Amino acid sequence: MEKVAHSFRAWYIITIGNRMKFSHTRWTMNKLKLFLEKKAYNMRISSLVATNLAGSGHPTSALSAADVVAATFFYGMKYDPRNPDNPNNDRFILSKGHASPILYAVYKELGIISDEQMRTYRKFDSVLEGHPTLRFSHTEAATGSLGMGLSIGVGMAKSAKMDGRDFHTYVLMGDGETTEGSIWEAAEIAAHYKLDNLVAIVDCNRLGQSTETIHGHHLKRHEEKWHAFGWKAIIVDGHDMNQIMHALEKAREVEHHPMVILAKTIKGKGAPVAEDHLGFHGKAFKAEDMNDILKHLETEYEEAVEFDAQAYAKENPLPSPPVRPEGSESELEGSSDEEILMHDPGYEVGEKVKTREAYGHALKELGSRSKRIISLDGEVKNSTFAEIFEKKYPDRFIQCFIAEQNMVSMGVGLQRRGKLPFISTFAAFFSRAHDQVRMAAVSTSPLRLVGSHAGVSIGEDGPSQMGLEDLAIMRCLPQSIVFYPSDGVSTHKLLQLMANYNRGISYMRTTRMATPIIYENNETFEVGGCKVLKQSENDVACIVGAGVTLHEALKAYEQLQGENINVAVIDLYSIKPIDAATLEAVGKKAGGRIITVEDHYLQGGLGEAVSAALNHTDFKISCLAVTELPRSGKPAELMAWAGIDAAAIVKKVKK
Amino acid sequence: MEKVAHSFRAWYIITIGNRMKFSHTRWTMNKLKLFLEKKAYNMRISSLVATNLAGSGHPTSALSAADVVAATFFYGMKYDPRNPDNPNNDRFILSKGHASPILYAVYKELGIISDEQMRTYRKFDSVLEGHPTLRFSHTEAATGSLGMGLSIGVGMAKSAKMDGRDFHTYVLMGDGETTEGSIWEAAEIAAHYKLDNLVAIVDCNRLGQSTETIHGHHLKRHEEKWHAFGWKAIIVDGHDMNQIMHALEKAREVEHHPMVILAKTIKGKGAPVAEDHLGFHGKAFKAEDMNDILKHLETEYEEAVEFDAQAYAKENPLPSPPVRPEGSESELEGSSDEEILMHDPGYEVGEKVKTREAYGHALKELGSRSKRIISLDGEVKNSTFAEIFEKKYPDRFIQCFIAEQNMVSMGVGLQRRGKLPFISTFAAFFSRAHDQVRMAAVSTSPLRLVGSHAGVSIGEDGPSQMGLEDLAIMRCLPQSIVFYPSDGVSTHKLLQLMANYNRGISYMRTTRMATPIIYENNETFEVGGCKVLKQSENDVACIVGAGVTLHEALKAYEQLQGENINVAVIDLYSIKPIDAATLEAVGKKAGGRIITVEDHYLQGGLGEAVSAALNHTDFKISCLAVTELPRSGKPAELMAWAGIDAAAIVKKVKK
Repeated sequence: MEKVAHSFRAWYIITIGNRMKFSHTRWTMNKLKLFLEKKAYNMRISSLVATNLAGSGHPTSALSAADVVAATFFYGMKYDPRNPDNPNNDRFILSKGHASPILYAVYKELGIISDEQMRTYRKFDSVLEGHPTLRFSHTEAATGSLGMGLSIGVGMAKSAKMDGRDFHTYVLMGDGETTEGSIWEAAEIAAHYKLDNLVAIVDCNRLGQSTETIHGHHLKRHEEKWHAFGWKAIIVDGHDMNQIMHALEKAREVEHHPMVILAKTIKGKGAPVAEDHLGFHGKAFKAEDMNDILKHLETEYEEAVEFDAQAYAKENPLPSPPVRPEGSESELEGSSDEEILMHDPGYEVGEKVKTREAYGHALKELGSRSKRIISLDGEVKNSTFAEIFEKKYPDRFIQCFIAEQNMVSMGVGLQRRGKLPFISTFAAFFSRAHDQVRMAAVSTSPLRLVGSHAGVSIGEDGPSQMGLEDLAIMRCLPQSIVFYPSDGVSTHKLLQLMANYNRGISYMRTTRMATPIIYENNETFEVGGCKVLKQSENDVACIVGAGVTLHEALKAYEQLQGENINVAVIDLYSIKPIDAATLEAVGKKAGGRIITVEDHYLQGGLGEAVSAALNHTDFKISCLAVTELPRSGKPAELMAWAGIDAAAIVKKVKK
Repeated sequence: MEKVAHSFRAWYIITIGNRMKFSHTRWTMNKLKLFLEKKAYNMRISSLVATNLAGSGHPTSALSAADVVAATFFYGMKYDPRNPDNPNNDRFILSKGHASPILYAVYKELGIISDEQMRTYRKFDSVLEGHPTLRFSHTEAATGSLGMGLSIGVGMAKSAKMDGRDFHTYVLMGDGETTEGSIWEAAEIAAHYKLDNLVAIVDCNRLGQSTETIHGHHLKRHEEKWHAFGWKAIIVDGHDMNQIMHALEKAREVEHHPMVILAKTIKGKGAPVAEDHLGFHGKAFKAEDMNDILKHLETEYEEAVEFDAQAYAKENPLPSPPVRPEGSESELEGSSDEEILMHDPGYEVGEKVKTREAYGHALKELGSRSKRIISLDGEVKNSTFAEIFEKKYPDRFIQCFIAEQNMVSMGVGLQRRGKLPFISTFAAFFSRAHDQVRMAAVSTSPLRLVGSHAGVSIGEDGPSQMGLEDLAIMRCLPQSIVFYPSDGVSTHKLLQLMANYNRGISYMRTTRMATPIIYENNETFEVGGCKVLKQSENDVACIVGAGVTLHEALKAYEQLQGENINVAVIDLYSIKPIDAATLEAVGKKAGGRIITVEDHYLQGGLGEAVSAALNHTDFKISCLAVTELPRSGKPAELMAWAGIDAAAIVKKVKK
């Protein structure tokens, strides 16, 4: 699998540091320091020019980080820049995504990005976007919504531990974003799992977008928090290369704890007009200022500017590329292009099964089909039934505790390192991590999400626990698919489809109460499909339901039959994509009268999806859905109250 | 405004503690301790019986908290239980909402809830829901999604500071929920604003729903974190009344810092079968176990059981009710039933104005109309233009830093204490707090939310910064209203409507780029309205846009006019509620052909809203919207790429 790195200039340079660590003299260290300062100097120039040409961007946020980023890539990290897929590469995540110029600048120094490409920054046809996305092949994960990078790093570091790989993961954060709670969710989990292969760097440049950060330059306040959360911490002058190099070495030595490097920096470092001043965030420098700034840089870094980096690189022998440690072949790695197949389940028609429990059993079987499949839980495994998977595969089950934001972004990190994470919690609590799910979609990271306890039909626990907007918030993600199975068989089959869907987020909604099995075990399902369960030559309407309301629709069908009223019934198990063709064909035969019924708020749910899919027809569509704030009560009482039960459907048909 | 408390038994009891603090002897203290233990005993019985009768609920989570809750209400707090609206009352928020029986049990001891009512727990007609909601008049805020109570408390404590009131706010959390990052966002802000009137209590019962909590009974680990975040902390045995009373006294004495009481407790305390055992979370005890448990309680709390609480209460003199400190009348309190009016703005038709900037100016004027109006910012005030308000009313502007979750729940706390919070950040970043917004809706808390930088039209910053799902996630909230103004005048007028909308969440979406003023300053707008800007006798289609796309629709109109093609154009500034009648009337005249165009993903946005509103008609509706993951580029390039610009509209009309 692993290619051997070719010999080329960039390669000399980046791993020199690793060699130097073991045998450096004052003389070589001083040269190395000059070399790193030269790199940082070049990166400052690149960042300034790129943002100036783009006419927008965040140069001052890049300038404060130039020195730590140069040292991290050219001294701290061990990786093969020509082969980003090398599974032994160290990883770097730019959590402060607005500082993207510094990321692109370092890849320019590595010979990955050309001078010309660098000039396309922020342009429509360029892969060098305003905030990093995966359109640039060396981006580990899309960032730009702050406070997520550390969770992604936790996922990558955890993946390394699971696979017995010894690569390190580096995450660069801004000090401003450390007020995001998600950072502390990640910090907690990283310490809990003793991720000593995770290195966080906080670029403490004191200034946010519009005001001073909460701790300004009081780095001790930062240090106390990281210590309290179980991390090793070291404070350095973020513009003193010796201190940064020392900290990076310490970070590779520490054991049993993750480590954070708190770098005291100056926002806009190198551009005197902006240095340590508010009012320059997200502002590119104008042409008229550029000459002064570039001149100042030349004098401030005079020694480094004159240093011959190429000659220095030539003098040093080629080191070996990163390799996986002897005999550490992991049990948990599988091929990434396998199609994952499952046996048919063993349910009996009519048997009552909770779809959330069917999920647990199906996930367990999936686990036997691919070593890459893992389960993440937000401390509700006995409600979502993820515990069934845990019992069989404890080493592929990750307890993320009550911290949904970290759980989702951690899933992105695990997925990027080759895992297939199935993440389950209450449907309602995915709303807690919607920004993380949104950014996972921007990363085109195929997370598998399963939300239980959907709708008013959960009963007595009340509205805070009812997932009533999950279909809406999962549908409005690019390339997402959304399933809502009504029985154990469809749950089983749809989960297999999710395991094989790699183009984006897949979401399944499960039901708390047990519902009867309606499908034979060999029934087949597809992405974008639906099932026509009842149809006749003289249907007066077509009822479209899914999950718990499908069973209400079937009850209504029986009652209406008793009164010699025929209706068609469709199981819309795939809410997105939606089978518009079948809906239209069946609807037409039913006189163009369609009634949708769902245990979800009206907006963004099944009814609006059907209304939009058929908005080119002359059908008369009525939507039965939850329209008011629910309360505690018995499931049946609440479904009657909401007007989404069999009685409400019968009433609507008769109207 | 403030009623004087009537004399009644409960009243004697609850404030006794406050008197005792100043003059207690060992004798009186011992009696007081017995009195509090008796209350805790009664509350345990009530919690056990209520959950047993309901057949569901979380008795073990209530039992661990019984002693701290009894001491907090009957010793620590100063309030008038008969008058929950008394603005000087101390406040109690049950962040661990699943322990609701203990909240109802204490109000039963206070004479607010009858024995009979207590037996309706979790029933459809009862206000005593599974997790507390405002249907029970003494609930401060709906809880049940964990990790939000502290932020709500921060809002209440901050409100007290703003108004010069000296009430304290108490928040009871579980240890499990302290892994939620939102807790640490709140902890940070509370310390930053020196909220020494905020008292957090963590019920450290060691056990979560499905596994042990991350720190188990290592309370020192909790203490270190709270200290590092700037809090005073004290560890107590949560079942030792003397220790709890001492801690509650300390909490009232501490200055300049919020304080947390870390209570080491036993889950299920009092029910031997469940005490400190996993597997009993969220399980009501069965009838057959109840007798043993009740017998055990009688012996365990024998001395307290025999104590005559009524006699004790009679012996004590009636204290004065809580009063506001002399001469502390606040400048920031206004009448809560005022209608808030504004002058017309001073824009000129054709003038180019950013709606986000118009928001800043309108908010500033609103500030002059009501002292209750405040502004909360997530460190983007110079992008949302909330800074215009801050400059004029710095003491009504709250910087919440980059912590959107806390910002929203803090808004609920401020709103509950009489403020009208306007909360603004990037539209995309409200997805970070969607669970908090969802729970604010469950609290029927009328937060005013304003999201800037909507859509691909923001340009170069790329997809992470583009609000493309905000309409979907705001529409699917019960009683929410959603506005999307297209110019400065409508922004100004719609903001006034938001200021006067008190039935739920109101959301406004603003645009980054400047758009021309199209309305006269005296134009009127309404909740659920729209504007027919163009209409003729021979329209071939009706184009429905809002915000930035409305201007594209108007450009398309001009181009089509040049080719003698007439179309109607509607400004759908109110996305929810939606003016179905006007859409239908205008659509019918336009041959039933409607084209919607929006800078938002297709799902849950304007197009689906229109499709659903007209799903009973035979109209042919086409939706132009963003359907793929965007990228960086110029606004015009991106709108062309997405197919939502004038050219795309013209093309669609011709088809």
